[in-house]
Amino acid sequence: MTDQLVRPAGRDERPRSVDAGLRRRARAVIPGGMYGHQSAGPLPPEYPQFMRAGRGARIWDVDGNEYVDLMCSYGPVVLGHQHQAVEAAAAAQAQLADCQNGPGAVMVELAELLVRTVEHADWAMFAKNGTDATTTCVTIARAQTGRDRILVATGAYHGAAPWCTPRPAGVTAADRVNIGQYTYNDLASVVAAAQSGPELAAIVVSPFKHDAGYDQELVDPAFARGVRELCDQTGAALILDDVRCGFRLHLGGSWEPIGVRPDLSAWSKAIANGHPLAAVLGNDRFRDGASRIFVTGSFWFSAAPMAAAVATIGALRAQDAIAAMDRTGDRLRSGILAQAAARGIEVSYTGPAAMPYLTFAGDRNHEQASAFAAAAMRNGAYLHPRHNWFISAAMTQADVDRALAATEAAFAAVHAP
Amino acid sequence: MTDQLVRPAGRDERPRSVDAGLRRRARAVIPGGMYGHQSAGPLPPEYPQFMRAGRGARIWDVDGNEYVDLMCSYGPVVLGHQHQAVEAAAAAQAQLADCQNGPGAVMVELAELLVRTVEHADWAMFAKNGTDATTTCVTIARAQTGRDRILVATGAYHGAAPWCTPRPAGVTAADRVNIGQYTYNDLASVVAAAQSGPELAAIVVSPFKHDAGYDQELVDPAFARGVRELCDQTGAALILDDVRCGFRLHLGGSWEPIGVRPDLSAWSKAIANGHPLAAVLGNDRFRDGASRIFVTGSFWFSAAPMAAAVATIGALRAQDAIAAMDRTGDRLRSGILAQAAARGIEVSYTGPAAMPYLTFAGDRNHEQASAFAAAAMRNGAYLHPRHNWFISAAMTQADVDRALAATEAAFAAVHAP
Repeated sequence: MTDQLVRPAGRDERPRSVDAGLRRRARAVIPGGMYGHQSAGPLPPEYPQFMRAGRGARIWDVDGNEYVDLMCSYGPVVLGHQHQAVEAAAAAQAQLADCQNGPGAVMVELAELLVRTVEHADWAMFAKNGTDATTTCVTIARAQTGRDRILVATGAYHGAAPWCTPRPAGVTAADRVNIGQYTYNDLASVVAAAQSGPELAAIVVSPFKHDAGYDQELVDPAFARGVRELCDQTGAALILDDVRCGFRLHLGGSWEPIGVRPDLSAWSKAIANGHPLAAVLGNDRFRDGASRIFVTGSFWFSAAPMAAAVATIGALRAQDAIAAMDRTGDRLRSGILAQAAARGIEVSYTGPAAMPYLTFAGDRNHEQASAFAAAAMRNGAYLHPRHNWFISAAMTQADVDRALAATEAAFAAVHAP
Repeated sequence: MTDQLVRPAGRDERPRSVDAGLRRRARAVIPGGMYGHQSAGPLPPEYPQFMRAGRGARIWDVDGNEYVDLMCSYGPVVLGHQHQAVEAAAAAQAQLADCQNGPGAVMVELAELLVRTVEHADWAMFAKNGTDATTTCVTIARAQTGRDRILVATGAYHGAAPWCTPRPAGVTAADRVNIGQYTYNDLASVVAAAQSGPELAAIVVSPFKHDAGYDQELVDPAFARGVRELCDQTGAALILDDVRCGFRLHLGGSWEPIGVRPDLSAWSKAIANGHPLAAVLGNDRFRDGASRIFVTGSFWFSAAPMAAAVATIGALRAQDAIAAMDRTGDRLRSGILAQAAARGIEVSYTGPAAMPYLTFAGDRNHEQASAFAAAAMRNGAYLHPRHNWFISAAMTQADVDRALAATEAAFAAVHAP
């Protein structure tokens, strides 16, 4: 792929013919042509639907267009694409065995490593999807407490099962009858929701507010401590949904910096640098409930993704990857904010440095965000107009410079009359 | 692994020390020491919990004990372990890219291949777990029909989500309030269940009755046709749960031999010979519902398992694998039934040749089945006392002979006073 050069000019110079042909074929054999979070349908036409390859922080679409990757496969890629140690570990395990009649020894090694790494964890279970992990957390909380009712923050994304998917089609009222809602960072709303129905099995909370399409909001430590206290008082489980943030903000769990520990936490995305794996971590108070539920999947005990996870956690530590992503994210933020200020464009750049999101003041229907994103894509930076971005530890200074050249051109495109 | 020899004698000669050490460590960091369908906890002590490798129809546990594999990782391994073409396809794709910002071109290729291969399919969607596939089928049916109610056969396994998991811990009444039940192969019970509540969104049915722990029962074609007619009359979706049987009985779908086509079908396990993938296939009547629901997962669009699936389907066809499994299964059945008859042991050997299950007449609590399985394991055949077995296309005559030597010793052990 290295012979492919970035094509930094106008959209007509970025070929799209392979992607267009695949989209045409896909419309015949895939409902809507594509579905789920990676559907390019709602995105500007500059977005390719189909991708070809990745290496480090650079990615190529099926037409050979190169981009600096600011989405990291919507989170899973934390060390960069094709990380050598991770791929070698996964390939070595795959050549021995992957999906067998039982797990490999690596399952125990990974569970031990996670228990050593994540502060609140006394035990681990594994699955495939983030949704598996959040749903399993809820099921464990219900089994342990003997209660049904769960609280989630209004607008928060916790997966795509009927109890939590953001779109109502095919969801029944019964799927949500035991789900109450509170407002993120508003402790009084949690208390009110807790008191407005039967006793709680659990409160589900994200490490920070990262609802798609909105300015992000860091957690108020007093809110987190208050939710922890409420759970302690009522016996409900505090479930931290660390699927999106896990291993991008802190190796010990995303709320370690504020000193609040959940009872259960859901993980997926980055824990195996793109290999398919999810995990539920929990403390001893919920071990019995966890041992009594029946959850499983045909590939949940496959060894190759677990070997990838062991290598990923090792590399995250060895490379001091979280500090690196923080520094890289800071540089990107400073550069983008300076570009906006120089043009007098009012923006909000929110969230942790490694998971930023950009909005434009007064931007109705994400029109300016979409124009900005489209121009950034034309200029070789893959970011997103309605979803937070992700920084990987593979981003070099040259990658940041390349991304900033694209965002500079994108601000120019938005600013043009 | 080929230097490891089968150890055919008594249990004390099969080392278990590595497995025992791993189990001890696992008890500290995994609830109950293990969970899900691959937990060895409920199995005789001859079963290892942890596996090391596989090749063709032979597998090795972490202590180096070799077995002929009659479980095939509970179904996923259909061409045998480490199938060369499948592993090469997956590795080549993985070296380019796996989990990206969008699917690879291989997603379209696989969807087209499935639509060409499976007779009722006009379109395809992909996921990771069999449970994802069955749940997505149900969600599509509800979205398309605007109805909530689903029928399933009593005792049938359709996955491990709250609406279908066989164990009640952590499941709420609301999770099941829209699920009605019928008796497999009893059309009158389906009609009665359909009439006993609100209009149906769907009827979920397995290709044959394969409830764990019971004699299997092939589908009565009149039952299948009756269910199809009922769905046609009421507008409900006929959902075939082909997760366990798919691509082991017929490439065109497991009900093709009886000429009954579902509206939606759920697939996983064998479609990528052990690589993590699930699929939902459907006809055009349900395309709109499928395009309106929101289901997704971080790894659902990963390219390597899709490349493995394309290679798997190609190899299944090129090797005439289904006919091969049928022949191998016939030889195993004939051999085992002859062994039982020679000893005057009354057994039931049920199900399709490629997915058999053995029970003993009057066997309370699976005591004889467990003794048989334990002795088979001591003698180098990995089968199961309470779950159907799986034949792979990699089984040679020598593998069948080896398995039959083990079952001969196992019958002797059961028969011993």
